[in-house]
Amino acid sequence: MVKTIELVDGVVKMLDQTRLPREVVYVDCKDYQMVARGIKDLWIRGAPAIGIAASMGIAIGAREVRADSFDEFMNGLEPVFRTLLATRPTAVNIQWAVDRTRKLLDERKDRPIDELKTFLIEESLRVLEQDIEINKTIGKWGSQFIKDGDTIITHCNAGSLATGGYGTATGPIRAAVEQGKKIQVYADETRPVLQGCRLTSWELMQDNIPVTLITDNTAGAILYNGEINLAIVVTDLTVANGDVANKIGTYPLAVLCRENGVPFYVAAPLSSIDFSIPTGDLIPIEERGPEEVTHVFGCHIAPEGVKVRNIAFDVTPARYVTGIITEKGVFRPEDLHRLNEPGVDLEAIMLKAE
Amino acid sequence: MVKTIELVDGVVKMLDQTRLPREVVYVDCKDYQMVARGIKDLWIRGAPAIGIAASMGIAIGAREVRADSFDEFMNGLEPVFRTLLATRPTAVNIQWAVDRTRKLLDERKDRPIDELKTFLIEESLRVLEQDIEINKTIGKWGSQFIKDGDTIITHCNAGSLATGGYGTATGPIRAAVEQGKKIQVYADETRPVLQGCRLTSWELMQDNIPVTLITDNTAGAILYNGEINLAIVVTDLTVANGDVANKIGTYPLAVLCRENGVPFYVAAPLSSIDFSIPTGDLIPIEERGPEEVTHVFGCHIAPEGVKVRNIAFDVTPARYVTGIITEKGVFRPEDLHRLNEPGVDLEAIMLKAE
Repeated sequence: MVKTIELVDGVVKMLDQTRLPREVVYVDCKDYQMVARGIKDLWIRGAPAIGIAASMGIAIGAREVRADSFDEFMNGLEPVFRTLLATRPTAVNIQWAVDRTRKLLDERKDRPIDELKTFLIEESLRVLEQDIEINKTIGKWGSQFIKDGDTIITHCNAGSLATGGYGTATGPIRAAVEQGKKIQVYADETRPVLQGCRLTSWELMQDNIPVTLITDNTAGAILYNGEINLAIVVTDLTVANGDVANKIGTYPLAVLCRENGVPFYVAAPLSSIDFSIPTGDLIPIEERGPEEVTHVFGCHIAPEGVKVRNIAFDVTPARYVTGIITEKGVFRPEDLHRLNEPGVDLEAIMLKAE
Repeated sequence: MVKTIELVDGVVKMLDQTRLPREVVYVDCKDYQMVARGIKDLWIRGAPAIGIAASMGIAIGAREVRADSFDEFMNGLEPVFRTLLATRPTAVNIQWAVDRTRKLLDERKDRPIDELKTFLIEESLRVLEQDIEINKTIGKWGSQFIKDGDTIITHCNAGSLATGGYGTATGPIRAAVEQGKKIQVYADETRPVLQGCRLTSWELMQDNIPVTLITDNTAGAILYNGEINLAIVVTDLTVANGDVANKIGTYPLAVLCRENGVPFYVAAPLSSIDFSIPTGDLIPIEERGPEEVTHVFGCHIAPEGVKVRNIAFDVTPARYVTGIITEKGVFRPEDLHRLNEPGVDLEAIMLKAE
């Protein structure tokens, strides 16, 4: 399994994903500024992976702070927090890492500074481990729906590279392989940024999981031909009614799956579910600049000056979703809100493979 | 309107579409070998345009044949036919041009050779004119479904560049503009070969028809948002039951249109309808090499050695098609076969805008 990020001997080793699949280069980030640059310049991406990078950036940033008191230490951490938060303003996982650090340190304000510094290093390693643990649990729950011989389609990259390791959408795929099931994967290339082409197909090839790359346009034909048994994608944000926001192109894939009787699963760590948003039409959708559409790997492919709509995400209504795979089990989208009910019997509402 | 191909003073002037949208270069083809090279190297593409190029290639090839008798003339034409037919073995329009030439010459075998040579030049100009005429008629019939203020989505390129001019799928769009309707067009980029990006958006920009370029993945979101009033695409081959084969990605677009209540029209010159094939599942579907998926404009974007499925066309079942726009009128796919019935009252089965 490809390592996305590590913290070894006080150095954050980060795979520069912008060079994939052409080059496999790990950058040694020896200070928090370099970690921030890696987040900003997209060496690392994917919500869980960004959260891990931010935690590690805070830990190696804290090491350099000279402080004789807790308040001085917290003051010294401010530039670290600010620099990391400024890298990608919409990445909620950086804010999560900062808030979590403040809270954990506040609970330990009477401890020696050196102990706090060591604690932050250990804590960032725990964040990494916990992420992998969550993904493995998602993998275990999801893999029950994958049968020996199945062909799975996925979109974008929600693999090792987007997480601490193992991957969310690739979790059930890896678990199925570990269970000895012979499976194959179709990876949508995922225009405009080609994460499926550059990252998903590359990472599955590294682990000898049979993968076939297709253009996004081709998913319809192979679904219609009956060549696909199930789809698994990830989600950037799932809301209370089970509507799912994810990379542009997810909604068309879900519609095509339902039209052809193919189950459509969404791997959703609980951290990606916002129960305070009732329905998907309330999710703000980011539209980005034209360059990702008009250029590929720096190569200009479109007419000069053409008008472009570059919508980064779409919302898949719950009615197209067969099951939402969380670390607590797999649930029908309409049952998702019940995870929040006190004393709910999860076992009773869980989706299970026949 | 962009000129795709012309025959002026015995020279075939062909727009080299492989250089679009970066450069607008017309190549002067002074002999049939150069015309053949243009077809082979995809300077010109699109079934109608290839048929026109072949007719013009035959005409300027015939001019160079030295013959004292009809049989000698026909023998002299053989290398011209052979060279053109060898360029793109699956392009039925080249075979059509050759067969048509043989037939027309055979009907005139007692005429002087010089007269036949002039006849072939004139004939190739008529092929061009007739193609434009058919497209304008398709445009007229189709434009009734386009209202002032409408937004239209299209896929691939079925515009001027794929035809003698005016275009098939763009026919109704151009006709609506000529009628003073204010419309705008969304063009799917159409991976892998990006005809929508490189050709459709470019050609509409040349004629100041408002066009917005999107990735193929984005069509779903804008249809779901209610931003599209109708879709118009072309067809490579439509069969008796109204099933439609066209560029990969057409079927997903049709499914998304129906799912969102958006009418889906197919512009189909009668020459593209094969009534001898009963249903779409009998249409052979070309799968091509991986390079179109792994490379964009010569730039390698995919992991080295990745397995690829590059399906060139898909079949859209008739149930997703609102109307088929021919030069005889617009028909429901289930009524298409009736065009072949002797004495059928076309007026009675025609689809009309409300």
